Amino acid sequence: MANAIITLTTDYGTSDHLVGTLKGVILKINPDVTIVDITHNITPFDLLDGALAIGSAYAYFPPKTVHVVVVDPGVGTARRPLLVSAGNQYFVAPDNGVLSVVYEREAEGLMVRHANAEHYYLQPISKTFHGRDIFAPVAAWLTKNWQSSSMGEQIEDYKRFTLPRPKQADGVVKGVVLRADTFGNLITNFRQEDLPESALSGGAIHLLAGTQAVTRFVETFADGSGAEPFAYLGSSGFIEIGVNKGNAARTLGLNRGTPVILTK
Amino acid sequence: MANAIITLTTDYGTSDHLVGTLKGVILKINPDVTIVDITHNITPFDLLDGALAIGSAYAYFPPKTVHVVVVDPGVGTARRPLLVSAGNQYFVAPDNGVLSVVYEREAEGLMVRHANAEHYYLQPISKTFHGRDIFAPVAAWLTKNWQSSSMGEQIEDYKRFTLPRPKQADGVVKGVVLRADTFGNLITNFRQEDLPESALSGGAIHLLAGTQAVTRFVETFADGSGAEPFAYLGSSGFIEIGVNKGNAARTLGLNRGTPVILTK
Amino acid sequence: MANAIITLTTDYGTSDHLVGTLKGVILKINPDVTIVDITHNITPFDLLDGALAIGSAYAYFPPKTVHVVVVDPGVGTARRPLLVSAGNQYFVAPDNGVLSVVYEREAEGLMVRHANAEHYYLQPISKTFHGRDIFAPVAAWLTKNWQSSSMGEQIEDYKRFTLPRPKQADGVVKGVVLRADTFGNLITNFRQEDLPESALSGGAIHLLAGTQAVTRFVETFADGSGAEPFAYLGSSGFIEIGVNKGNAARTLGLNRGTPVILTK
Repeated sequence: MANAIITLTTDYGTSDHLVGTLKGVILKINPDVTIVDITHNITPFDLLDGALAIGSAYAYFPPKTVHVVVVDPGVGTARRPLLVSAGNQYFVAPDNGVLSVVYEREAEGLMVRHANAEHYYLQPISKTFHGRDIFAPVAAWLTKNWQSSSMGEQIEDYKRFTLPRPKQADGVVKGVVLRADTFGNLITNFRQEDLPESALSGGAIHLLAGTQAVTRFVETFADGSGAEPFAYLGSSGFIEIGVNKGNAARTLGLNRGTPVILTK
Repeated sequence: MANAIITLTTDYGTSDHLVGTLKGVILKINPDVTIVDITHNITPFDLLDGALAIGSAYAYFPPKTVHVVVVDPGVGTARRPLLVSAGNQYFVAPDNGVLSVVYEREAEGLMVRHANAEHYYLQPISKTFHGRDIFAPVAAWLTKNWQSSSMGEQIEDYKRFTLPRPKQADGVVKGVVLRADTFGNLITNFRQEDLPESALSGGAIHLLAGTQAVTRFVETFADGSGAEPFAYLGSSGFIEIGVNKGNAARTLGLNRGTPVILTK
Repeated sequence: MANAIITLTTDYGTSDHLVGTLKGVILKINPDVTIVDITHNITPFDLLDGALAIGSAYAYFPPKTVHVVVVDPGVGTARRPLLVSAGNQYFVAPDNGVLSVVYEREAEGLMVRHANAEHYYLQPISKTFHGRDIFAPVAAWLTKNWQSSSMGEQIEDYKRFTLPRPKQADGVVKGVVLRADTFGNLITNFRQEDLPESALSGGAIHLLAGTQAVTRFVETFADGSGAEPFAYLGSSGFIEIGVNKGNAARTLGLNRGTPVILTK
């Protein structure tokens, strides 16, 4: 039988011993787990960034994968640790909305538990490192017994936030840059269905990203020319703005939060 | 039977092929090893930084874990490669003190060997990449035969240094910032027992970090308010200085080596 | 039987969900794969940088290892995905020359296939993330069936480039800095056989890196003194320029592309 899989998504960075320590805790409980890093470079304390990262990755993993997501500005406070079953997978995270994209996409069959069975925690529990003391051990024990009901009671009042959606206003559609990726591509909150059919087929589009006009919609990067920015359908389902073999965020001086306006 | 575990702690960074190469060497000797990165971002050549990283992480791993620690400014010289048994685990590292925290915490039952059985090395041995040619293969062969005595003779004159400890002087206690972590939290060399009981219970403390006064001792980050720095007990047992949802190192302009004075 | 091994070498960085997603795709197809990161910090779109990284690492892995190499400025265009058998190992990469070092070193027994059997791809195929949709699944399916012939037809007209070699001109030998590594060591394109015997044995050398004279050839870093730069034989077979416990790239203000002239 294949090993259980636990993934890790955190804002811990990779310069400290923190991530390695999580892995030790997991392997001490269940040495037969395959551990996969999704990313540890979530912007510190940034719940939207964390929600987007796990939301873009989880569906590509096998059934029964356990995803640990720790972006946790409220560590050590009364905010609850959660164990969530959704889409044939599991998620262990603080109750602060960092799983909002998962909740949105897996509304059917979603079950959220308050993972308060403390005998699964690592003792003594610190006030500042619940990844090590709570989230990692809960995930590891789950892969030992697969008894999610033993981890805590189901709750309904878990925290969630809604991803910002483009809005019609003043005859235009107003969206925003959600983030820039490693290549500097600007990921907007527009989706394919928010664009006019003419843009998707013919290639002409009328976007204003900050003060920068984007007038071409292309299929892939190599269709771009020179330093001209273009829009395209990104691999996570969002419309993105890029530059061929370049870094759009740097070239255009834009980043997260920049307004993106579709004028049609 | 579960796979053997080898962890890696180095100053190699992750931009080169170096870390991947170590893993290839290990898997070629023993394909059934689970390899775990603790961190590869130790400050280059910095033995204290390396000693703190492995010292904070090792105890969370299962018995028989083999920890490879390569911070090695003397690579290619006569400094010895070591195989250390301590705390039911193993450590493979150069003899330059990078295991000093392990030596301090695992004084009982410590056994240090000069790993000079060259038939376990990868031939030809380069002068500049002993991680690949000596440390990784020694660790991998150990997980094949678990015969540490075959790796070399026990020695007693291995190098070690003492972690800087706070000192009483002029009516105050003088400590130092050991490092800043990913979040910018300043890890001092004070421990819980170095603080007055009143600070730990009541919350008032009198610290001077550089020229910056720190007057509150809190349980966790969310107890802080605004940009005011506070002290708290960190997850590795050191007193740390932080800012709620902020980066103390950047906000205060402080970093490693800053004096920290407890005036009581 | 030991798990199959798949390595990953990309320019994806580690700040996004991209690398984690590749791993999910692989594990969903074959949960018994051991996945190893070589590096994800190849300079974006830089085929030479990618070719050097995989070229320096692959030979240290066990037979049958499958190396996925994704540096792919032409993603979504007609450039072909390849499956290459070489040196008892496999390589999955776009047909853009990123495997040139492998082709050069494994000329014997090299077999290059156009991996166009689309039933191995992940559907629907995006235009911008072929790592996820083509390269990772092809590698994973190969570890399931080991039938490389089922992946596509052999081709001969694959793209390759020649590594820049030092050239005799005007009574000197003109080379170049290929890259700087994590430590700031400058990796040149000179090899041992390009240097006069006197340099290798006696230690005197006459190099000009940019405007910086390098006059000593040493065996290892600790033989250097102060901030004086020196040349040495690096672990990948290239002559490198370094500074003892320092960062030569930063100290000398040199980097990739700097001319290096051997005046004998």
